[in-house]
Amino acid sequence: MKTRYFDHVATNPLLPAALDAMMPYLKEEFGNPLSVYDLGLRAKNAIEDARDMVASLINAKSAEIIFTASGAEANNMAIKGVATAKQGEGKHIIISKVEHHSVLNTARSLEKAGFAVTYLPVDKYGFFDLDALKKSISKETILISLIHASSEIGTIEPIKEAVAIAKERNITIHTDAVASTGNIPIDVKDLGVDMLSMSAHQFYGPKGAGALYLRQGQRLVPLIYGGIQENGRRAGTENVPAIVGMGKAAEVAKAELQQRNAHTGRLRDRIINALKDVEKVHLTGHPTQRLLHHASFVVEYIEGEGMLLMLQAKGIYAASGSACTSKALKASPTLTAINVSPTMAHGSIVFSLGIDNADEDIELLLEEFPQIIKRLRDISPFRKGWGEEEGGSKHV
Amino acid sequence: MKTRYFDHVATNPLLPAALDAMMPYLKEEFGNPLSVYDLGLRAKNAIEDARDMVASLINAKSAEIIFTASGAEANNMAIKGVATAKQGEGKHIIISKVEHHSVLNTARSLEKAGFAVTYLPVDKYGFFDLDALKKSISKETILISLIHASSEIGTIEPIKEAVAIAKERNITIHTDAVASTGNIPIDVKDLGVDMLSMSAHQFYGPKGAGALYLRQGQRLVPLIYGGIQENGRRAGTENVPAIVGMGKAAEVAKAELQQRNAHTGRLRDRIINALKDVEKVHLTGHPTQRLLHHASFVVEYIEGEGMLLMLQAKGIYAASGSACTSKALKASPTLTAINVSPTMAHGSIVFSLGIDNADEDIELLLEEFPQIIKRLRDISPFRKGWGEEEGGSKHV
Repeated sequence: MKTRYFDHVATNPLLPAALDAMMPYLKEEFGNPLSVYDLGLRAKNAIEDARDMVASLINAKSAEIIFTASGAEANNMAIKGVATAKQGEGKHIIISKVEHHSVLNTARSLEKAGFAVTYLPVDKYGFFDLDALKKSISKETILISLIHASSEIGTIEPIKEAVAIAKERNITIHTDAVASTGNIPIDVKDLGVDMLSMSAHQFYGPKGAGALYLRQGQRLVPLIYGGIQENGRRAGTENVPAIVGMGKAAEVAKAELQQRNAHTGRLRDRIINALKDVEKVHLTGHPTQRLLHHASFVVEYIEGEGMLLMLQAKGIYAASGSACTSKALKASPTLTAINVSPTMAHGSIVFSLGIDNADEDIELLLEEFPQIIKRLRDISPFRKGWGEEEGGSKHV
Repeated sequence: MKTRYFDHVATNPLLPAALDAMMPYLKEEFGNPLSVYDLGLRAKNAIEDARDMVASLINAKSAEIIFTASGAEANNMAIKGVATAKQGEGKHIIISKVEHHSVLNTARSLEKAGFAVTYLPVDKYGFFDLDALKKSISKETILISLIHASSEIGTIEPIKEAVAIAKERNITIHTDAVASTGNIPIDVKDLGVDMLSMSAHQFYGPKGAGALYLRQGQRLVPLIYGGIQENGRRAGTENVPAIVGMGKAAEVAKAELQQRNAHTGRLRDRIINALKDVEKVHLTGHPTQRLLHHASFVVEYIEGEGMLLMLQAKGIYAASGSACTSKALKASPTLTAINVSPTMAHGSIVFSLGIDNADEDIELLLEEFPQIIKRLRDISPFRKGWGEEEGGSKHV
């Protein structure tokens, strides 16, 4: 059976051009970049070329890119690194209620270490409450970390406005741009952030490669100590093939961004326009100020896992922010933050699009999905249970 | 020119069987292991198969293996993870003076955070002073972290004896076994350690994959917070291809260990036996209780970098623990700890052997290297400078 992959926020297939670029470094060019002989120097040069390409994708200087093994590592490094470096100046941090777990749980670990954390509320679209941001800043505030775009609801946040507020008070600001970097245009100079996290596999690069943009002059304590790799800011033998693949993927993403966005944006709009007419299916996140490859919904009366498994039976892969599928046994904090009830959050579904999706994929989805909803509702215990009590309101 | 690679402690070529195992996960099997559909489940299963293979290599249970991106990450995770988890019980840590930078610099970061660190001395072979270990333990001691085998001097340490001392006092003990795992037999149950760090590229696995063995029941705070990967102990989308490659490399290492050791041990002894007769060339580390693929020396009157570059001109790749080549501008702490003078430490050279080395490689090395030593000494400013003051004594 031909499969249709609509889960590009979970991960992406590796771009063939990126794999081609990696292959020599998985074979004969295996040198350690710290070695002084030519085999090592070629590996070192390959990393520096990749650094240039990643920097160029976000309009940073090459020296401002620190390679990591994942977006999660970049987020941990940014938040713990600044918290440790600046704890003498204050112990208050601000994040939002719609952060990824790698930001949320890092902030919680800092709470255990004696930091105070403010969890900024959002509106029904997921937009930060910027007034609340202003009010929550105190003399103790040393760091603000806010997501750039949510992989769960797609909303692109007003980071520039948040940066203006942070800079007025001279507070370091980080953004988790893992879901957005390589998928929409990002210019760190224009955004004005001090730090930005990204992940290669979100833009068709390899797994095992991420990066932190660290503005020149910004202090940071390392997360991983050891050798002098990454200018002493992140130790461990460099994953040369993955870094090279990330560089190539960044280069291609920059060149093809407009064309990719036109393609996925059109497919996204087909999904949103068709599903908004299905009874008791609600778009989550903002209708237009959202990632171009992202269409997310809550479907009343049924559960995410059931939808995913029935879609899979038709060769369609998608994601859910629901409790079962995240395996965390709790309602998604992001959906809770935008005021989706815990019951309705069970029916979360996310279709995220990619360069490998064609119009016929969308047609199949739009033919199958409403039937799946109907079949699941026919057997749903929620239909005449919790659903009757809580459902029905177009509350998102 | 045919090249001869004698720098297997820096990194190794990737085993073709490991690359073959990785290829599907670099191509069509690109799923996220957290996804509920079949593409994700196959990735998840591949990780669990790899976990079994890595566990089997060191006689651990699969649930005791936490995948990381590097040995450095595993070392940081172990030391900071236990220090944070147990700081309520005491704030004293013991490491040795011959640790890798990823242990040494992590310990130093804990000193800045208010921990006391004892740096255990070693004898001229690099063996821990076990009496000093006993004496340095106090009621405040919560963690002992000692290297299993040094990549700089090759010495295999008496870890079992150190474990016995630690266990008598009920203190958690970690070993950095990055240089040894996959290269000599390791049985964590026999060693008795609570934690052990390893790195895939040290045994012909891919870069970007490491692991921490964490004995069941041992408490640890995560280094990287976020999602529920690795049972909530290490967040970030799994680097599936690298993990799969690590598993395959572990499986092959286990099967071929004896044969590999017989081969590299014989080549190592050829090097040691020939070079010990060269004037003012001294073996570092223990003559026999050492890694089978490891031959290390200090060469009086000349510098490591000069040797490496002249060796490279003959197609021979080796390493040096000297200041220039480590780019750290300081004498190697390991060589200092075994009482090599800073001047003589400049002349450090390490030949580390692998499955790709043949007898003819050794013959070339043994023909070229003494000539290189002679030529460099002829032009050495040290010969009639510092060297005269400090050199000459067979002090190692």
